[in-house]
Amino acid sequence: MAFKVVVIGGGAAGIGAAGGVKAADPANEVIVYTEFEDVGYSPCGIPYVHGKEIAAFESLFLADKAAYVAAGIDVRYNTRVTSFDTSRKVVHVEGEGEVGYDRLVVATGFDYADPGVPGGDLGGLYYVKNIRRAMEWDTVLDTVKKAVVVEASPLGLEMVTALPHRGIETHLVDPHPWALGELADPDIVAPVQESWGEMGVQMHFNTKLEGFLGDDGQVRAVATSGGEIEADLVVISTHKRPNNAVAVAAGLHVGMTGGIIVDERMATSAPDVFAAGDCCEIPHGVTGVPLQGLTGSHAYSQGKVAGGSAGGARRAYQQVYVPWGMVAGKWMIGGVSFGETAANALGMPYVLGVANGISRARYYPDVKPIRVKLLAEPGSLRLIGAQMVGGEGIKERADFLAMAVRVGITLDDLATMENVYSPPIGALNEPISVAAQNGLAAAARGS
Amino acid sequence: MAFKVVVIGGGAAGIGAAGGVKAADPANEVIVYTEFEDVGYSPCGIPYVHGKEIAAFESLFLADKAAYVAAGIDVRYNTRVTSFDTSRKVVHVEGEGEVGYDRLVVATGFDYADPGVPGGDLGGLYYVKNIRRAMEWDTVLDTVKKAVVVEASPLGLEMVTALPHRGIETHLVDPHPWALGELADPDIVAPVQESWGEMGVQMHFNTKLEGFLGDDGQVRAVATSGGEIEADLVVISTHKRPNNAVAVAAGLHVGMTGGIIVDERMATSAPDVFAAGDCCEIPHGVTGVPLQGLTGSHAYSQGKVAGGSAGGARRAYQQVYVPWGMVAGKWMIGGVSFGETAANALGMPYVLGVANGISRARYYPDVKPIRVKLLAEPGSLRLIGAQMVGGEGIKERADFLAMAVRVGITLDDLATMENVYSPPIGALNEPISVAAQNGLAAAARGS
Repeated sequence: MAFKVVVIGGGAAGIGAAGGVKAADPANEVIVYTEFEDVGYSPCGIPYVHGKEIAAFESLFLADKAAYVAAGIDVRYNTRVTSFDTSRKVVHVEGEGEVGYDRLVVATGFDYADPGVPGGDLGGLYYVKNIRRAMEWDTVLDTVKKAVVVEASPLGLEMVTALPHRGIETHLVDPHPWALGELADPDIVAPVQESWGEMGVQMHFNTKLEGFLGDDGQVRAVATSGGEIEADLVVISTHKRPNNAVAVAAGLHVGMTGGIIVDERMATSAPDVFAAGDCCEIPHGVTGVPLQGLTGSHAYSQGKVAGGSAGGARRAYQQVYVPWGMVAGKWMIGGVSFGETAANALGMPYVLGVANGISRARYYPDVKPIRVKLLAEPGSLRLIGAQMVGGEGIKERADFLAMAVRVGITLDDLATMENVYSPPIGALNEPISVAAQNGLAAAARGS
Repeated sequence: MAFKVVVIGGGAAGIGAAGGVKAADPANEVIVYTEFEDVGYSPCGIPYVHGKEIAAFESLFLADKAAYVAAGIDVRYNTRVTSFDTSRKVVHVEGEGEVGYDRLVVATGFDYADPGVPGGDLGGLYYVKNIRRAMEWDTVLDTVKKAVVVEASPLGLEMVTALPHRGIETHLVDPHPWALGELADPDIVAPVQESWGEMGVQMHFNTKLEGFLGDDGQVRAVATSGGEIEADLVVISTHKRPNNAVAVAAGLHVGMTGGIIVDERMATSAPDVFAAGDCCEIPHGVTGVPLQGLTGSHAYSQGKVAGGSAGGARRAYQQVYVPWGMVAGKWMIGGVSFGETAANALGMPYVLGVANGISRARYYPDVKPIRVKLLAEPGSLRLIGAQMVGGEGIKERADFLAMAVRVGITLDDLATMENVYSPPIGALNEPISVAAQNGLAAAARGS
């Protein structure tokens, strides 16, 4: 039996869902409504085009519009779903009227949290999200002399790293004592902040945003608890909030994060309605605490499950352990689940193992340092979190450690892990293993 | 209670053991006998100095001789243990007489298998092993025009990659149909062989070594089943064989590989005698088949366990799953446990999942291909082996997959793994996960 599936949203979750619907049964019909001119590009690449690491926005597109037509995915561009009715199984499309569905996937994504200060309607405030707007802003960047990045979120870190590459005097304003203050530990971000300093970035931590100041409707400065900072451009990289007004109006249950509550099939509280991506919340595998605003990879995977479920397949999405990683300054940072800062905030006890290791043989060219911190549950010594900073191999180690947390691998297991030793690609001692050995020693000391 | 521990051998296993003895109890006495002028250097780095990736042999030394004195490790250089008696607990040191011990660690390493052909006593045959000899050979390399590498073993691959960097016409002679014929699958080494071709390497596979031909005691050509190949130098990189004559004479039990049999404490069949490194054999975690001639990382880890056990600590070494990896030609190759070739040779059935993925976002500079092959046990779908070739991140993935095999992770687990997605360091889809998804599809089709 084939289904007519309507997907609201054309981002990673929506496109993943459309593919999932077709993978479940090619006879399924799928219509994707998006408010934008495009689907199937990588918004995650935008900061790197701004930073000139990537030459052109065009390369961020995965496929042209014809490819979706060929795949049997009916994308309706520049359309807006204003409401849906789960009892009558219809969505209301602006200018088009009611469209019926058998199954619905809500993939409406996120909005940046409103900074909630005066001056938010000035020109020169840039919310990095849509690729067409990014193309326009990129020409603006050629004229910008001074920029302020508001909040050291993951996107904020990427933009703070990108803007100095354009010769722009870059300031970072954040209320926390260090960058990624809720996610990362201070010793992990310290080398990143040091390298920003070398790049000329001016960091304003413990600093509260108070307003945007302007002349003739255009921003000229940012007001903060530490004084005014001149700016031709402000990048606002506040937290991602679920874009859920339509879903809430339709009666879908949302959780403590404001994200739509879903089960393992990505089914919502309403019959035949599924959801995926930044509009949802997903429980953290260790704490059970719901998380919202994860990565594009999560959104895409959730979309595939939601679309598969909507299309009649048996698909399940797991709890998340959240491997993360990025380039920041001249380093890579990353981790899994949580570090000391978050564990302390949650009141979770932990055994800590730390190692400062290297990525290749100590004598091999371009050998890079890697700092690994492992957090384990006292007693069982099961891994519950990790944080890393280093020069290479952070993504792959985070992927590994996320699986390690998920399947219950212990510090004993990691302390006795085998590792590839080959001078150009791996050191005699794997830093993860040394951190685990140090964690075992700490546990034995009762510290 | 402190022990007097004698260690025979100053390689990775012997030095690891000496450290393990002291870590178990600083009051332990430890004496290391080595036939060579040095300990504590990285022989694994030698091919890279020959290839000029590393500037100087001196950088391969980990510590100077004073460091061992300071650590309380009594190293006796240029000494030869000719026999030991496990009932009287003495070793016989040439020119020094009998030396008593409480505990003995045998770490006598390997020799290259004798090629077993005429001409083995000619000059110009180079067995890469000792750093002082390597320094001498390195000056010879400046005069060499044509070289033959005998056998496409891991060391052979490194030398075949290094010699062209010196402007030397390089030939590879190997009896198998492809490089690493017993370890790697042909599709994994194909890109490596292609890149060797681009570097001008002349490959002679399915070719049997028949002898070394010389003038005035110096090699001038290699005789093979495919004809003569002119050579000023021959690098003999045959299999590693355990260097066990003294241990066998002392009555230690050896296994089918010729390696000393040890238990999980690295204890041998003789009381108070331990062994570690290439002179031992260790069971493979999946098949139980003993393996000998593993890596420097294995030798060092085994040494630490053997020395710790000898020194009175409770230490255990695990079965091995053998993550491996190296740079070969312009690629990295690696794997875990075994690939299709070895599985077929062992008569082991398997489900195969293959993916051709990428290391970063497809549009990010220096994105590299990665091919991942996963082998799983039919039915349970537990991972039993993996092989990879690609441009980056092979070592870290091999480490991960070795742990995955060890703890029983399945294709289902890997198919639903989370992964870091960040354009400069990780792609939307992790190749390991895609390979697992493809393996699940293959299992569902019953193929």
